[in-house]
Amino acid sequence: IAKEVAKLLEMKAQLGGDEGKHKFVLKTPKGTRDYSPKQMAIRERVFNAIITCFKRHGAEVIDTPVFELKETLMGKYGEDSKLIYDLKDQGGELLSLRYDLTVPFARYLAMNKITNIKRYHIAKVYRRDNPAMTRGRYREFYQCDFDIAGQFDPMIPDAECLKIVHEILSDLQLGDFLIKVNDRRILDGMFAVCGVPDSKFRTICSSVDKLDKMPWEEVRSEMVGEKGLSPEAADRIGEYVQLHGGLDLIEQLLQDPRLSQNKLAKEGLGDMKLLFEYLTLFGITGKISFDLSLARGLDYYTGVIFEAVLLQQENDHVEEPVSVGSVAGGGRYDGLVGMFDPKGRKVPCVGVSIGIERIFSILEQRVEASEEKIRTTETQVLVASAQKKLLEERLKLISELWDAGIKAEVLYKKNPKLLNQLQYCEETGIPLVAIVGEQELKDGVVKLRVVATREEVSVRRESLVEEIRMRTSR
Amino acid sequence: IAKEVAKLLEMKAQLGGDEGKHKFVLKTPKGTRDYSPKQMAIRERVFNAIITCFKRHGAEVIDTPVFELKETLMGKYGEDSKLIYDLKDQGGELLSLRYDLTVPFARYLAMNKITNIKRYHIAKVYRRDNPAMTRGRYREFYQCDFDIAGQFDPMIPDAECLKIVHEILSDLQLGDFLIKVNDRRILDGMFAVCGVPDSKFRTICSSVDKLDKMPWEEVRSEMVGEKGLSPEAADRIGEYVQLHGGLDLIEQLLQDPRLSQNKLAKEGLGDMKLLFEYLTLFGITGKISFDLSLARGLDYYTGVIFEAVLLQQENDHVEEPVSVGSVAGGGRYDGLVGMFDPKGRKVPCVGVSIGIERIFSILEQRVEASEEKIRTTETQVLVASAQKKLLEERLKLISELWDAGIKAEVLYKKNPKLLNQLQYCEETGIPLVAIVGEQELKDGVVKLRVVATREEVSVRRESLVEEIRMRTSR
Repeated sequence: IAKEVAKLLEMKAQLGGDEGKHKFVLKTPKGTRDYSPKQMAIRERVFNAIITCFKRHGAEVIDTPVFELKETLMGKYGEDSKLIYDLKDQGGELLSLRYDLTVPFARYLAMNKITNIKRYHIAKVYRRDNPAMTRGRYREFYQCDFDIAGQFDPMIPDAECLKIVHEILSDLQLGDFLIKVNDRRILDGMFAVCGVPDSKFRTICSSVDKLDKMPWEEVRSEMVGEKGLSPEAADRIGEYVQLHGGLDLIEQLLQDPRLSQNKLAKEGLGDMKLLFEYLTLFGITGKISFDLSLARGLDYYTGVIFEAVLLQQENDHVEEPVSVGSVAGGGRYDGLVGMFDPKGRKVPCVGVSIGIERIFSILEQRVEASEEKIRTTETQVLVASAQKKLLEERLKLISELWDAGIKAEVLYKKNPKLLNQLQYCEETGIPLVAIVGEQELKDGVVKLRVVATREEVSVRRESLVEEIRMRTSR
Repeated sequence: IAKEVAKLLEMKAQLGGDEGKHKFVLKTPKGTRDYSPKQMAIRERVFNAIITCFKRHGAEVIDTPVFELKETLMGKYGEDSKLIYDLKDQGGELLSLRYDLTVPFARYLAMNKITNIKRYHIAKVYRRDNPAMTRGRYREFYQCDFDIAGQFDPMIPDAECLKIVHEILSDLQLGDFLIKVNDRRILDGMFAVCGVPDSKFRTICSSVDKLDKMPWEEVRSEMVGEKGLSPEAADRIGEYVQLHGGLDLIEQLLQDPRLSQNKLAKEGLGDMKLLFEYLTLFGITGKISFDLSLARGLDYYTGVIFEAVLLQQENDHVEEPVSVGSVAGGGRYDGLVGMFDPKGRKVPCVGVSIGIERIFSILEQRVEASEEKIRTTETQVLVASAQKKLLEERLKLISELWDAGIKAEVLYKKNPKLLNQLQYCEETGIPLVAIVGEQELKDGVVKLRVVATREEVSVRRESLVEEIRMRTSR
């Protein structure tokens, strides 16, 4: 049936193209969207804030292709691999759209034998997930990644990643937030002392990862029912995953009779303590929570993991702040580059990914609500005329302005009415109008009008550029 | 066989993922590439020049998804449709990667019922072409498009598009260039008076389009041999397509006994005359050539078409400047939006696309040749220490700097040698070093070192931010 449906869809697509216009479905693919100029203006603001932060931390920037060899992506994402978009086999290589920016980054490092880099990468990634577009969940979405690769002293780069998340979320003024932190080694140690068999670590970790969306009871029954974990082991896990706190909790777990006997957990807890010391120096521990229920879905993490959530607090009736979803996440993945190296040479990495789409949804809703008027162009001046037959003069003047670097527009009409030209400025927020008329041409001047105040001054043509610059500089 | 190969490749890909690291082919897909930080630095320069120009002309910006419904792309590209990348049918919609930014733009206009917009769009497009990467021809490449949609008085937006090409190519200092201009109506009129049957217009147009890569003799034999045109018609075309010039040629053709009898050609020539008048006002006719051999490959053009080529002139032995390839192109496409509108309502459009990859190749080669050192970060200051055990103090200081908006880095080592820290600045171009030492901490100062001159000054800690800002502002 699937084959037949595919055949029919293919035929339909071909007919659509050949037979004519009226059969087109006018839409973007499921889970994707266009950005209008207004949305782009908001998007650029957010990008600017993020890029400024990444550059403040000394990052370089790279770019990679939107698709990779299919084999590059295989075996990196665990249960999520089914969400990868494959390209049709049209002869040649088997390709897939990138699922994140981390695996392409690791491939880039291994391919170019780079052992040391701090880079950011902002680009779209693709997941055949169930879209929830009102909540900012798309099939095509941006990731803004910052990663530090290299062999360094422990937890310094890790702490910087958390500092970056803190800076960006503060800068964007999204309201209160919390950054949850855990460590894969602590999780694995915990699984071991709770009696989870080694072979079930990853799948039980996936279950724990669902705790932010499901209550413990459901997660427990998935562990026991679907994944065959013993009820006793599940209950022991249940006790640990409700713990969260700060340095005090780390100290407490370092004394925990079971965990303290486990090598991995001890290593993880030791590093977590060091991390908190650095975060204290950065002055950001107030928004950091060491949280044993944080697991992160992806297979490739090996050490510290973290996730930032926004806290709902606008509604006063809500007693406790409620998480409204993750806006950033990341962690340490020391083994990923080695998977691509022919000799398995490892390059330790830690990085953070900012979930721009959700942030963007929030800001867009805020702009809508505030009725703030957002300009979508930067035009400084409209070149206009009060009389007819002055198109040539308008074109001559605007050409002079463009060549001097002034942002200028002209209406594409031979004889536009002055009123229409002024109205265009009001609508689009152009602050100045340069009006040419027969008298002005004779006198060698241009009338410059300030749209907001309706003030008009006569400016000598040779001083016009300077005058416009002065009046439009902040 | 093809099917078997596909099956084997699929199996190979799966094995690659499951069996282990050593079988990976470490490469990007055919015809694609990564951008290193250095390449990105050059790329951003070019993008900035282009975006600045687009904004100077009052353009808004939009974005669309990287893939479209397959049916959206069908029937738009003529013979080039075979180069479209399809996605695998994984259930749901049939999707294809965008082939250009023009068809998605037309889809966007029709879908949102926009009849009037001036926008730019910079994004990657995909073509399963034969890559020639040294010459800047890729399967994944950027297009930088500027388009004006709307019903306006003739040739004003068209002239602005040519002005934009002129501004960008001048600004990027790529050497001498020539913008060839023609009109699809003139071509169609010419085909008609030469005796080409209506049904062969598009395919003969495709042959003419090859004149920049093939000599006339080969194009002629394609027309006669493959496409079944009469030798007489071909020879008549051969006479016209060698013509190129300016206003004089337009006047001459308006008097041409055959062309002047053809309605389409007359319309096209009349508009071409008007276009040249506007280009004269813009002062750019020196680099514009009305060229009857220019055809452009794509189906959707309906009026003016143009293409900019760089002229080779560095070698003095070459008598006449030789074209080294197209770096921009575009034209008028008044019917495309109507193909998407359920009622066929038309929105006239004209636009230009800048061929960034070729420009980028040229600039990259130029940077290589000049040994110009390009910085890939913007870091203003490295926070360093002269003695051991000062990691905490370095982290405290850098945190203060970050919070004040200073671009700062620190080496991720507990006890780095001062020499290594200074060397890092030399290598990466960081201009300043803020050195903390025990004595400085006691005195409440920081030693600020200028890397280039080795000058060192003591700065009070509370003045450090101001001092760094002053010293790094241009």
